[in-house]
Amino acid sequence: MVLLFGIFIRYNEEADAHWVEHKQQHNLTDIDNDFYFRYPSFQDVHVMIFVGFGFLMTFLKRYSFGGVGFNFLIAAFGLQWALLMQGWFHSLDQDTGKIYIGIENLINADFCVAGCLIAYGALLGKVSPVQLMVVTLFGITLYAVEEYIILNLLHCRDAGGSMVIHCFGGYYGLAISWVLYRPNLHQSKHNEGSVYHSDVFAMIGTLFLWMFWPSFNSAITNHGDGQHRAVINTYIALAASVVTAVAISSMFHSKGKLDMVHIQNATLAGGVAMGTSAEFMISPYGALIVGFFMGIISTFGYVIVTPFLAKSLKLQDTCGVHNLHAVPGMLGGFIAAIVAAFASDSVYSHQGLINTFDLTGEYASRTMSTQGGYQAAGTCVAMAFGLIGGAIVGLILKLPIWGDPADDNCFDDEAYWEVRSSLSFYLNEMCFVV
Amino acid sequence: MVLLFGIFIRYNEEADAHWVEHKQQHNLTDIDNDFYFRYPSFQDVHVMIFVGFGFLMTFLKRYSFGGVGFNFLIAAFGLQWALLMQGWFHSLDQDTGKIYIGIENLINADFCVAGCLIAYGALLGKVSPVQLMVVTLFGITLYAVEEYIILNLLHCRDAGGSMVIHCFGGYYGLAISWVLYRPNLHQSKHNEGSVYHSDVFAMIGTLFLWMFWPSFNSAITNHGDGQHRAVINTYIALAASVVTAVAISSMFHSKGKLDMVHIQNATLAGGVAMGTSAEFMISPYGALIVGFFMGIISTFGYVIVTPFLAKSLKLQDTCGVHNLHAVPGMLGGFIAAIVAAFASDSVYSHQGLINTFDLTGEYASRTMSTQGGYQAAGTCVAMAFGLIGGAIVGLILKLPIWGDPADDNCFDDEAYWEVRSSLSFYLNEMCFVV
Amino acid sequence: MVLLFGIFIRYNEEADAHWVEHKQQHNLTDIDNDFYFRYPSFQDVHVMIFVGFGFLMTFLKRYSFGGVGFNFLIAAFGLQWALLMQGWFHSLDQDTGKIYIGIENLINADFCVAGCLIAYGALLGKVSPVQLMVVTLFGITLYAVEEYIILNLLHCRDAGGSMVIHCFGGYYGLAISWVLYRPNLHQSKHNEGSVYHSDVFAMIGTLFLWMFWPSFNSAITNHGDGQHRAVINTYIALAASVVTAVAISSMFHSKGKLDMVHIQNATLAGGVAMGTSAEFMISPYGALIVGFFMGIISTFGYVIVTPFLAKSLKLQDTCGVHNLHAVPGMLGGFIAAIVAAFASDSVYSHQGLINTFDLTGEYASRTMSTQGGYQAAGTCVAMAFGLIGGAIVGLILKLPIWGDPADDNCFDDEAYWEVRSSLSFYLNEMCFVV
Repeated sequence: MVLLFGIFIRYNEEADAHWVEHKQQHNLTDIDNDFYFRYPSFQDVHVMIFVGFGFLMTFLKRYSFGGVGFNFLIAAFGLQWALLMQGWFHSLDQDTGKIYIGIENLINADFCVAGCLIAYGALLGKVSPVQLMVVTLFGITLYAVEEYIILNLLHCRDAGGSMVIHCFGGYYGLAISWVLYRPNLHQSKHNEGSVYHSDVFAMIGTLFLWMFWPSFNSAITNHGDGQHRAVINTYIALAASVVTAVAISSMFHSKGKLDMVHIQNATLAGGVAMGTSAEFMISPYGALIVGFFMGIISTFGYVIVTPFLAKSLKLQDTCGVHNLHAVPGMLGGFIAAIVAAFASDSVYSHQGLINTFDLTGEYASRTMSTQGGYQAAGTCVAMAFGLIGGAIVGLILKLPIWGDPADDNCFDDEAYWEVRSSLSFYLNEMCFVV
Repeated sequence: MVLLFGIFIRYNEEADAHWVEHKQQHNLTDIDNDFYFRYPSFQDVHVMIFVGFGFLMTFLKRYSFGGVGFNFLIAAFGLQWALLMQGWFHSLDQDTGKIYIGIENLINADFCVAGCLIAYGALLGKVSPVQLMVVTLFGITLYAVEEYIILNLLHCRDAGGSMVIHCFGGYYGLAISWVLYRPNLHQSKHNEGSVYHSDVFAMIGTLFLWMFWPSFNSAITNHGDGQHRAVINTYIALAASVVTAVAISSMFHSKGKLDMVHIQNATLAGGVAMGTSAEFMISPYGALIVGFFMGIISTFGYVIVTPFLAKSLKLQDTCGVHNLHAVPGMLGGFIAAIVAAFASDSVYSHQGLINTFDLTGEYASRTMSTQGGYQAAGTCVAMAFGLIGGAIVGLILKLPIWGDPADDNCFDDEAYWEVRSSLSFYLNEMCFVV
Repeated sequence: MVLLFGIFIRYNEEADAHWVEHKQQHNLTDIDNDFYFRYPSFQDVHVMIFVGFGFLMTFLKRYSFGGVGFNFLIAAFGLQWALLMQGWFHSLDQDTGKIYIGIENLINADFCVAGCLIAYGALLGKVSPVQLMVVTLFGITLYAVEEYIILNLLHCRDAGGSMVIHCFGGYYGLAISWVLYRPNLHQSKHNEGSVYHSDVFAMIGTLFLWMFWPSFNSAITNHGDGQHRAVINTYIALAASVVTAVAISSMFHSKGKLDMVHIQNATLAGGVAMGTSAEFMISPYGALIVGFFMGIISTFGYVIVTPFLAKSLKLQDTCGVHNLHAVPGMLGGFIAAIVAAFASDSVYSHQGLINTFDLTGEYASRTMSTQGGYQAAGTCVAMAFGLIGGAIVGLILKLPIWGDPADDNCFDDEAYWEVRSSLSFYLNEMCFVV
């Protein structure tokens, strides 16, 4: 890694000390550095990756260390690999053969890692840390390729990554999990599920994801109105998801009680589905409608679809990635295709339309219905990369060399962590008191 | 809600794709979008609403799900309603009949929701989620009206909402709680109070509220010196509160020990009281004095006043909203009235005074002592709206149709949540070990 | 404190209401206020101080209140003192005798407090809150002096404070701890160490420190490329630390298991060591190399050095401050000296070099190798201040007037907090069920 960084990676113009002179030549002010347009969102995205995903995965009663700890490990490892991989596809300077990085590359590396962390959600508790490193290594490579195809070759827009992050990451994890099916997983049944405090820990993850999702969807959109609009749309869609997720959760319970699993997950589905169209002129009520239905679909998925998949499709999906990422991501891709197809000069203004969809150069003549078609095609590419790539990586992970946990040892931190048991602590104390 | 959004709500100029052309016409740069002046503070406020208030209310041993979960629900629901309600009063365009929203509306919706969450603090554990929805629906409507009266008709300044948020929200919750008095609440005594870990969870809420309060008080102040000054004042007032709250907490304990309830709450009182005057030239030592006394008054309230109110006024105030929001908010309003009355050209500069108090148009001739009088009147309006509105909403909630918990079932998540008990988990494990 | 604030502290130009007129005179726009360049980083630093350090110190099974609560107290108290102390040395206007404060002073006060919180890490569980106030009072005073010597007299650069914060703070705490050596600390052995949930709480602290470290190291660097570059370097160094810390942790365990102590701490060492050179043109692979080795050195310290120091040097270091702050901070100082000594016009550009090292006025003729020498000297000054200052403060704290806990009462919240035991709660519940 050090070698590759040494050969390829350099600061970009705005992060280099030469910028002082560049600034004077081009009559720029300090604040014109792209850094200031992106840094607040970057930090929010960073929080989502490490605290959001990390704590969301602490919900299991005996796997909180693995949830937050392995998330930390693979995210930090993945970032480095992502800087290289995405750099080769997106930022490689043809003349110098170097990758010039700046704040946008850091955000994109976080995005890239997000795809792998979503996949981890489907595998949580059933794989070894070494297997996770393999998932990350291949996941990031696949991500860089599919993203290049979708964004550069098909020239799709996907600011918040409904397609390239959520749809790809979700199906990637599901395909791996499907290949790694464990018929005797019921032997770890006593470790599945949450306890009271672990559910409260998971709410930390949920809330930081929920709150900062507007930053996620706006982090790399256009300066000015693009970022502004992406924030508004995402904020509204998320608010709507919460209300319908709660309503459906209560409706499916015999006594009208709420289930923490739905509150922790389905409340976020609006943000996933708004990923691609956040920067479009979907209008505030459009965002509200998307959020409204995603809360319903996602909660329904947790109640009905996940148990069905486990039973009939032999698909073990620990965190319900199918309901939170795969399906809402895919739907988000198709919704954006429709919104794009109906975009017009009157709604966006002529220059606004060109800016929003970057219809310059060779794409200047692309009509909006064509753009819609490409957006839909992009969604299919993401799904295909996830499913096929995941199946192949799953097969690699079946090799008996990776130290995966035994069937009766899943969802248990004891396998990979030095655990100072809270139980023995309470028992000791008790003996002392009694 | 979808219908109302569809009819009324549109992007404002700076969030609309037309902004690209608007920018060129007015010779603006990307960074001139109001978005960049407000977004970092907006996200901090968002964290305060969801993580701050949410986790602060997890302190009860058996009501952590309800604390953070219902907070999430009513905040997300309230945001949508607030965009409409505040929009009708503040952003309705007379010509088009539309509400044009941008980042400032999102912040204001968060503020509006904060008033209802404060009220929830007084009701925590004693009401059903449906009742909370009613509290939110009416609370936000009342908020929009009192805010319109105070800010637009009386032309008060209230950047951080000592009056419109804390004073109103506090008294609103207290009045509801007073009407809903439960003589047999002692039957749920075993569920009241905290355990070790729930107190640590609550500290997450306290710290995020405390840290981001400077953003709260500066989020909608004037660009430039206004935001800068509001941050400095709030930072200093909060730091002073912590020290006096700790000192008084220790002083009231027979062995000089500290009480987590005071650390979790009274440390924040300086931020509440600094809400209105944060953007004024109160001077750093003025802010220090305010924080100093608020820490004392608030801790004193927790030790002496809350038990007194519960006994003699039949007012059950779960979180001590009286000491953290109602009284410091009211005092903050009156402090600001005094500071405003003594504002002068020499301290603010002529243009600075006009800017800070927005003395333009019909208000250009208002003297500072008059402004002080209006600020004091505004505080009284907020209190009156809270008390009267709360009493009426309380009466509505007394109707026996809302599914509120029985007296021996309060402060217990089992009533509304599917709980996988941590106790049975430890017992099971124990049987296994022994 | 109120008196001193009243006499000395005033708003600086950009936080004063006169700024409106100043802005017009100098043809500035709203966004040119230094506030907007620093505020997002400021809030991140604030989170690191209160949530980061606070929760990192909740890892002990019976001292979570003390960890997060005393951290809160001494940070809030320290901020006020730091505004004065640093103000006297750095912002005192010679003409008016006033200290003019703005956003940069708030950040510097947070930095100053960080030094004391690092020292608290070595003392955790073994001192009384009054002793901590003394540690803070002297610590901040010493900090202000050593910072003045290093930054102003020696004219070193130290944006992220490897020298002035980490090296000083670490050795300051270690020296105090060494003087306060308790031969019978083993009597509190049953309270040392963590339980399952307290380790998860500590991960909240770790992650917020880790994520926001790029803001810490860039908060007061030059506008534009300086901040941009500091973020990139820190991000990369931290990512590298995580991977090597995990690898070494696993390598030292007989069964290859991971230890939470290492994950919570050693993963941060890259950020500490990158403190001084973050704004230099160390290049991305330079940052990667620094992070790579720091993860190794720090984990090695936790496994080997801390037990060795405890045994042979009679140095009780609760949080392992030696491995996370003292040594990486010192190494960071020397690394920066080398990087500075090799800085050249060709890498930085002529103007870039002058800007980065602020080689203006009397320092215009300083050569880069001289600058490197001064950087190394600065590191030695920081260490000397820490060791000597700490030894003296330790002697003061040995006076038997500070109410420190008995040897069998260390690491126990019962000594200073009203604890509603979680144990008695579980026992009660059990009696009820059985």
